[in-house]
Amino acid sequence: MLKGLIEKLGNQKVSQSESELYRHSGDESSHTRVEPDFVFFPENVEDVVKVLQLANEYDVPVTPYGAGSGLEGQAIPINKGISVNFDQMNKVVEFFPEDLMITVEPGMTRLQLNEYVNKHGLYFPIDPGADASIGGMVATNASGTTAVRYGSMRDQVLDLEVVLANGSIIHTGSKAKKSSSGYHLNGIFTGSEGTLGIITKVTVKLHGIPEKVLAARCTFETPGECAEAAQAVLSSGIQIMRMELVDAESIKQVNEYGNYTFPEAHSLFFEFAGSPNIVEEEATVVEELMKEFGCKNWEHANSSKERIELWKARHEMAYAYKHIKGKVSTGSDSCVPISKLAEMVVFGRKLLEESGLVGGVFGHVGDGNFHTLVMYDPNNSVEVEKAEYTNSQIALKAIKLGGTCTGEHGVGLGKMKYQVAEHGEAVELMKSVKALFDPKGILNPGKMFYI
Amino acid sequence: MLKGLIEKLGNQKVSQSESELYRHSGDESSHTRVEPDFVFFPENVEDVVKVLQLANEYDVPVTPYGAGSGLEGQAIPINKGISVNFDQMNKVVEFFPEDLMITVEPGMTRLQLNEYVNKHGLYFPIDPGADASIGGMVATNASGTTAVRYGSMRDQVLDLEVVLANGSIIHTGSKAKKSSSGYHLNGIFTGSEGTLGIITKVTVKLHGIPEKVLAARCTFETPGECAEAAQAVLSSGIQIMRMELVDAESIKQVNEYGNYTFPEAHSLFFEFAGSPNIVEEEATVVEELMKEFGCKNWEHANSSKERIELWKARHEMAYAYKHIKGKVSTGSDSCVPISKLAEMVVFGRKLLEESGLVGGVFGHVGDGNFHTLVMYDPNNSVEVEKAEYTNSQIALKAIKLGGTCTGEHGVGLGKMKYQVAEHGEAVELMKSVKALFDPKGILNPGKMFYI
Repeated sequence: MLKGLIEKLGNQKVSQSESELYRHSGDESSHTRVEPDFVFFPENVEDVVKVLQLANEYDVPVTPYGAGSGLEGQAIPINKGISVNFDQMNKVVEFFPEDLMITVEPGMTRLQLNEYVNKHGLYFPIDPGADASIGGMVATNASGTTAVRYGSMRDQVLDLEVVLANGSIIHTGSKAKKSSSGYHLNGIFTGSEGTLGIITKVTVKLHGIPEKVLAARCTFETPGECAEAAQAVLSSGIQIMRMELVDAESIKQVNEYGNYTFPEAHSLFFEFAGSPNIVEEEATVVEELMKEFGCKNWEHANSSKERIELWKARHEMAYAYKHIKGKVSTGSDSCVPISKLAEMVVFGRKLLEESGLVGGVFGHVGDGNFHTLVMYDPNNSVEVEKAEYTNSQIALKAIKLGGTCTGEHGVGLGKMKYQVAEHGEAVELMKSVKALFDPKGILNPGKMFYI
Repeated sequence: MLKGLIEKLGNQKVSQSESELYRHSGDESSHTRVEPDFVFFPENVEDVVKVLQLANEYDVPVTPYGAGSGLEGQAIPINKGISVNFDQMNKVVEFFPEDLMITVEPGMTRLQLNEYVNKHGLYFPIDPGADASIGGMVATNASGTTAVRYGSMRDQVLDLEVVLANGSIIHTGSKAKKSSSGYHLNGIFTGSEGTLGIITKVTVKLHGIPEKVLAARCTFETPGECAEAAQAVLSSGIQIMRMELVDAESIKQVNEYGNYTFPEAHSLFFEFAGSPNIVEEEATVVEELMKEFGCKNWEHANSSKERIELWKARHEMAYAYKHIKGKVSTGSDSCVPISKLAEMVVFGRKLLEESGLVGGVFGHVGDGNFHTLVMYDPNNSVEVEKAEYTNSQIALKAIKLGGTCTGEHGVGLGKMKYQVAEHGEAVELMKSVKALFDPKGILNPGKMFYI
């Protein structure tokens, strides 16, 4: 059966090599790997239409794969079938510099996109850390360190070209900056993780590259104080570019890993960006504010080199943890109203300590979004249990406080169990939407909802 | 039959008075009035559940009514049945000043909301002109003069409580500032015009009241030059608060109506808001930029009184037109990519002149959203035809240029005919979503799509 399907797709666009099957069996999370039956590399929208028509005919699952940088297993083909890889669909379709807008294929990564538009004085600011594909970032509604300024992917998407399960091609929006026409399909496809259709073109907003960037860092006694200080920055109305929390344990890991001497205390990292006068003023106001809140070790940096140095502990953090031998990482991704952030951060730190596992608390505190990262031995069932317990306690508490179990990673495999707790009756409606868009269940089955 | 239905709803919550039936038969548009069978005034979500359960049982349409300030007939019960009026559901449910967030009932108007939060230094900035209800603004994805800074209603909504057609109550979001959990129901209910469910609570973002506001005005030779100048402001990256175009004909109408002496030329109106130093700098940069583009009559105003005076021509414009005797108004609401705005504005002005009808071009040029307003005698079929022709040519050209037929008014009755031109195949998907959410077709039937 597979052989006939592969022939119809064209042998040269399909791979069953061991290395490709392995690559498409997982992402950057520790979710169990599952290899697809084969990988299909479409070159254009017609290829995507074809794979969906054939998937219907042969009744096999189709799982889109971007850069493989997901953190919740969205790209893992848990029911096997076809992995659809967008490496060949990574080009600029049309660039509209005057409209601060570009249309690209989904396989283009955010760094490729920036390389293309930077020379025109423009940039695409959403920065989830990894060099994710734009299609993947839309599919998970990714965000990251700049969301405090620009929002998440859903705020950038103007239009998507999507191939539906039945093979028909639709557009979900337009090139207008705002619209009250029709139902908001942009919104529902963004964050749908390949379960409602396959994205084949993405039109997003671009922004002008800020004239000046200034970085700063300071420390506090407790993670709760960091969160309270971050809340004060938000209330001041200052449009910061980034505001990140990194707890003392994480700084310690970075120091050990990189042989640095950063102050091993709970730290806030800031970035200000815009026209020079305004940026200087913002940094001064925040410095005064942080000192009112009792910060220590305020440092700021102007030059690009100094900025990189100052933010090093933030950038190398996840990396530092990952080098702990014999352990793998898992993490939480909750997002709560800002007024609850201090409570959550303290709660997360306490849970980690009670677990006895090595782990850190950090995050995009300007949005109320933070992560815990906990290291465990996957062959030690007690540690596995404890790591899972930590994650679930944080997700459930965030939901109880009016927040969400996932601020930016998406549901995938890891957050399915919290959907009813978070969305209640609305989950039934979501499941009926899934059934409407994908009646045969061929689109990334087994993700987001227990159906 | 109606009598039994009314009894079950409770006579004291229902009105069949002539004045109420008339009030609920129309909105601020010139769409044909249709009276409901009766008006129901729910006091809480349970009442809304009840009316939907009974509407199912008796198979009668339910049409929500907010402040009656809509411009596309969304609140007109064209198939009669029950008008659901939210005058009694206009209270604050919960206020979260630290989180810059509030939950209100849908009948609260935007001025009532601002009155409540202003004393805490906060405001709700979305300003469609009329004192619309918050529920109505969500239902149409309203925006207006401040969208260039804050986006539209969809960008403000964090959570909605919605009663579905079957009477079940869901929440569409959470109180987190961002989320990647579940399908984005906030987005699809915002702008759904009462066709997918009835909104009973709205949680929206609030913003800090800017410390200083500065207004300015200048004129250009042609509306095209205005649009080009507006585009230059956007490209400069300055975060203006408002940027409005008013064409010479509209200024002339205001002068005649109010006995003023404003320069009768195509004008741009600006508002800058924020911390004092930044605002002054922004105004200076824009003044220089406008002069480079050949503007005349640059004037700016600091005090609140001067500001009101300076913007008078903008504020009184629609009012001035409406006092032309024997004529009613109709208008277009298209939104295009900024680079196409000059072309559209010139096109709109030319159409008005060719029609021989009195009319103006104005709009929120920072978003690429603009309106034509054309006055016609509803009893003169040639004028009716010409007015309709003008609107349709503008909508279709906007769609052709990659834009939308409605930037902020919504589809209602007037933009149904453009849905296929704008959304193509996606309309079938939207109609299937409607059928899924409202299988019996009791929710505001006859709006948005021809089904």
